[in-house]
Amino acid sequence: MEQCSRCKTTEKPLFRLKITGRLICPSCFIKYYEKKVKNTVLKYGMLKDVRKLALAVSGGKDSLALARVFLEAFPKIKFTIIHLNLGIPNYSDECQGVVERFCRENSIELILYDLKNRNGYSIYDFVDGPFSKRLCGVCGIVKRYLMNKIAFENGFDTLATGHNLDDTVEVLFNLYINGRIDEVARIRPVLSSVNPRIVKKIKPLIEMTDEEDLYYVISRKIDYASSECPLVKGSRMIKRKKLILKIEEEIPHFKYLLLKTHIKRFLPILEEYVPPPSLRECEKCGMPSVDLICSFCKLSSRIERLVESN
Amino acid sequence: MEQCSRCKTTEKPLFRLKITGRLICPSCFIKYYEKKVKNTVLKYGMLKDVRKLALAVSGGKDSLALARVFLEAFPKIKFTIIHLNLGIPNYSDECQGVVERFCRENSIELILYDLKNRNGYSIYDFVDGPFSKRLCGVCGIVKRYLMNKIAFENGFDTLATGHNLDDTVEVLFNLYINGRIDEVARIRPVLSSVNPRIVKKIKPLIEMTDEEDLYYVISRKIDYASSECPLVKGSRMIKRKKLILKIEEEIPHFKYLLLKTHIKRFLPILEEYVPPPSLRECEKCGMPSVDLICSFCKLSSRIERLVESN
Repeated sequence: MEQCSRCKTTEKPLFRLKITGRLICPSCFIKYYEKKVKNTVLKYGMLKDVRKLALAVSGGKDSLALARVFLEAFPKIKFTIIHLNLGIPNYSDECQGVVERFCRENSIELILYDLKNRNGYSIYDFVDGPFSKRLCGVCGIVKRYLMNKIAFENGFDTLATGHNLDDTVEVLFNLYINGRIDEVARIRPVLSSVNPRIVKKIKPLIEMTDEEDLYYVISRKIDYASSECPLVKGSRMIKRKKLILKIEEEIPHFKYLLLKTHIKRFLPILEEYVPPPSLRECEKCGMPSVDLICSFCKLSSRIERLVESN
Repeated sequence: MEQCSRCKTTEKPLFRLKITGRLICPSCFIKYYEKKVKNTVLKYGMLKDVRKLALAVSGGKDSLALARVFLEAFPKIKFTIIHLNLGIPNYSDECQGVVERFCRENSIELILYDLKNRNGYSIYDFVDGPFSKRLCGVCGIVKRYLMNKIAFENGFDTLATGHNLDDTVEVLFNLYINGRIDEVARIRPVLSSVNPRIVKKIKPLIEMTDEEDLYYVISRKIDYASSECPLVKGSRMIKRKKLILKIEEEIPHFKYLLLKTHIKRFLPILEEYVPPPSLRECEKCGMPSVDLICSFCKLSSRIERLVESN
């Protein structure tokens, strides 16, 4: 009879962990998951010198797992949740609702930012036209910029995101095979602040898989936005994640191996080789930028013109 | 009707090139292949300062393609073929016969080395016992050592091998994901001599695929040892090559991309970072070695004891 490999209970549901093939019950899984995240956080010194912490929470399984594991594993550390409403129909409002409920139920301060209200356009405005083929890239630029800006303007010095192992390896794989060394060097568990207007970023879930985050929110009975972003369908990111799972069928622990090799073998070399980006103030928004105008402002002015002309 | 994308002939056979999806007839393919190899050789300066050239020829499709393309593309460059008979039943004698015939028909000097006769053991002696799980690794050590030694002792300064794109990427992929930086840094189109007893190695087929080498020997009607090494079946190398073909279905030109990124992006960084190996003389054979005893001599003494005890 099937039983939990830890406590031997035969009560359902039992999850089968892909990484070991073992069965585990929800309460043992919770202990396993929280201990593992705690280890990651301590191993990389993610909470060292943190003064004021914010969590970027989208309402999906990963970021809600992040918020909950922080409540459980680091009960003394206070944090605020920042949520961006990206204005994607039949999706963004569900996400916002989930986050609002989570914050209410757990008495967490919430900073809400509505892209359409504040900036006059939403991610949905990029669907047709010149950006239609790279929506995930556009959305990434918007989220990275705004999350940092909101955190900075509200006095946070550290921003935690829910990027997990699958997300990280998908990006790493692509950057390595294309030899994008400068970007490879920026993929880290902790990205220190290189400018007063850039807050430190930490990725406490960087060693957790998509599967583990999902089992955790199920085990903890956390209400999360279970529908996938409707714009992500058929994206390169989704295809690449599938390819990586296929590789892992042939090379056990491929994802963890790639992350470990990256952090232990390549990062120390690349850190010496890749100079920190030389930053100036964006002429439009004043935030740090490599170019005269930052990529967010470039994107914004193009989409504002498109929205106006429609 | 199906026709050659170059000369428009409809005569069969027509090959479909995986990399472009185009059809091509044997005589157009020959031109394409020989030009591409010539370009690779010139691009990496493989024949610069060559005084006396040897080709390592196993009798398989790749190394015979190499020998033939050298006759065609560089008719003024004389070379000798070195062949190792590895003593694998139902395989090595077929390979030797093919190589002997090729040399006879093309008036090429041949140096034959019979492992069993000269060293008292063959690769087949490794089949049972402690080396059974890593036969390809053992065979690699033996071939690398002996090929270099034979070339050196016969006064050659350059040894060309038939390693192609698929071979190279299979190795690179493995070394990158395992972070074996020192070995990554040694995978190059041209490996200069770092010691008077180590001859320069060149890989003229490093940009050619398994498929292209096969089409070339077929087009040129070259008699090659078509049976696969019976010991390689189910090896990690074969599985890994299949995995890489699967990846290439998702990421077009994946193999070439990985090679190009390696050569252009990572090698320049790693060259600075990885010091050349500090070599001494092997206490047994006097050839260059990292340890007191070189890996070939270590292997030889273990297998000699095993062969004697049987």
